[in-house]
Amino acid sequence: MIGLSRLSLNQATVQYLSVAEAADLCVRHDIEAIGLWRAHVAAAGLAESVAALRSAGLHVSSLCRGGFFTHADPAAGAAAAADNRAAIREAAELGADALILVSGGLVPGSRDLPLARRMIADGIAELVPTAQDAGVRLGIEALHPMFCADRCAVSRLGQALDLALQFPADAVGVVVDTYHVWWDADLAADIARARGRIVSYQLCDWILPLPADVLLGRGHLGDGSIDFAAITAAVDAAGYDGYAEVEIFNTQVWDAPPDETAETVRTRFASLLG
Amino acid sequence: MIGLSRLSLNQATVQYLSVAEAADLCVRHDIEAIGLWRAHVAAAGLAESVAALRSAGLHVSSLCRGGFFTHADPAAGAAAAADNRAAIREAAELGADALILVSGGLVPGSRDLPLARRMIADGIAELVPTAQDAGVRLGIEALHPMFCADRCAVSRLGQALDLALQFPADAVGVVVDTYHVWWDADLAADIARARGRIVSYQLCDWILPLPADVLLGRGHLGDGSIDFAAITAAVDAAGYDGYAEVEIFNTQVWDAPPDETAETVRTRFASLLG
Repeated sequence: MIGLSRLSLNQATVQYLSVAEAADLCVRHDIEAIGLWRAHVAAAGLAESVAALRSAGLHVSSLCRGGFFTHADPAAGAAAAADNRAAIREAAELGADALILVSGGLVPGSRDLPLARRMIADGIAELVPTAQDAGVRLGIEALHPMFCADRCAVSRLGQALDLALQFPADAVGVVVDTYHVWWDADLAADIARARGRIVSYQLCDWILPLPADVLLGRGHLGDGSIDFAAITAAVDAAGYDGYAEVEIFNTQVWDAPPDETAETVRTRFASLLG
Repeated sequence: MIGLSRLSLNQATVQYLSVAEAADLCVRHDIEAIGLWRAHVAAAGLAESVAALRSAGLHVSSLCRGGFFTHADPAAGAAAAADNRAAIREAAELGADALILVSGGLVPGSRDLPLARRMIADGIAELVPTAQDAGVRLGIEALHPMFCADRCAVSRLGQALDLALQFPADAVGVVVDTYHVWWDADLAADIARARGRIVSYQLCDWILPLPADVLLGRGHLGDGSIDFAAITAAVDAAGYDGYAEVEIFNTQVWDAPPDETAETVRTRFASLLG
């Protein structure tokens, strides 16, 4: 359904590698695309990162991330907006297919979810002209509801899509991340409804028990509960023809030799999605 | 919006008390109703529990719980069905307003969520005649999506309601548990749609960080992220006129003196819901 030529390795899967090291790893394992994180790009330098990726012949499937629109303090909001504009410029320089947006949770000191969601919509609206000028597509990512309070008040793909549909398709789309949305009974219908709006497809498995830091509880494809064939078929049927990025936050995966991780990523991807 | 006369204390909030001790605690704190757990009732004896509650003049707002419909092994499924019929008889004896159903997660060895959900619907259908004969209402509870794989594949109120609407209203309704559904952008609309089907309203707060055992991460009302006034107003506007049960799984709460816990429960309830 999605062949290995569409595999992308998100840098977060090999957290301890620099941009250049992660690029080399991809080349060694015939992985044609990479998903990058801004902190790693900043550490390497933007121009140096672009050069390393070009010389490796790697496509950038996504840049993580912008967003965090929910601020009580106008100065913090303005700083976040400036940072988001910088992220758009970086995504343009890198030629990334999408800039991933994680929207932010409740406004500090508030329990007003509708307020948080209005601020998110307003924050995205404010970014759209910059994204269009730069030719960058923003990808609204729904995070699992367990992150709603502190990280992302966009909790379902359908909710992300309803937000995206307020804006032009060339500027705003949605991210389908299996870890965050696999449980949703409306997922198949929402993926179908997202035709033309899916700008990133990210993969990792849901494994139990959740670790103390629930950010780090993700597994290699096949180690957990997610039916990747079913979700991938839905994404494919919705016309998505971009890369499928494997992104695994897990200290055990990070501690493994990167070549072993890359090999596992390829093997699992081929057997579960191919 | 909901006065103290509608406060119920779920026994799980004072986990270490017997039925009789929990009943005495409610009487001491002018709490008119209690939510019970089957294991505690079994430990005390069903007839003895009924007698203790009658002599205390306590109403039983819910009995936890039946459900767990997702089995790979037909023998396990039959055993679960028999246990569910026993739970209905117990709920009838106790005069409980509802028997809470936690539906079960993925079928063991399977990643097929639609299969799990069909088994849940079929399992409920099988129980309906028994519930109607006994005059017991079943309450389908949506659990937070972080419990989808291993505990409950019904993850949103709207999903629970779509299930309940397949059956007569006198037999099957839904539980609104703030902890599990607070994050849902469709919550207000789904509560309105649940008019006539809300059979239990349960309360506790979402607090961070999540503990190692995510079952035990719940907080006293007001200690976390949930806007109880907004959700309670929606439940009230949907015509629900039953008890509001405070149910807190948290080892720190369990280790506190029960009278202190009951006092905190009353105070927070009055200030946030009253």
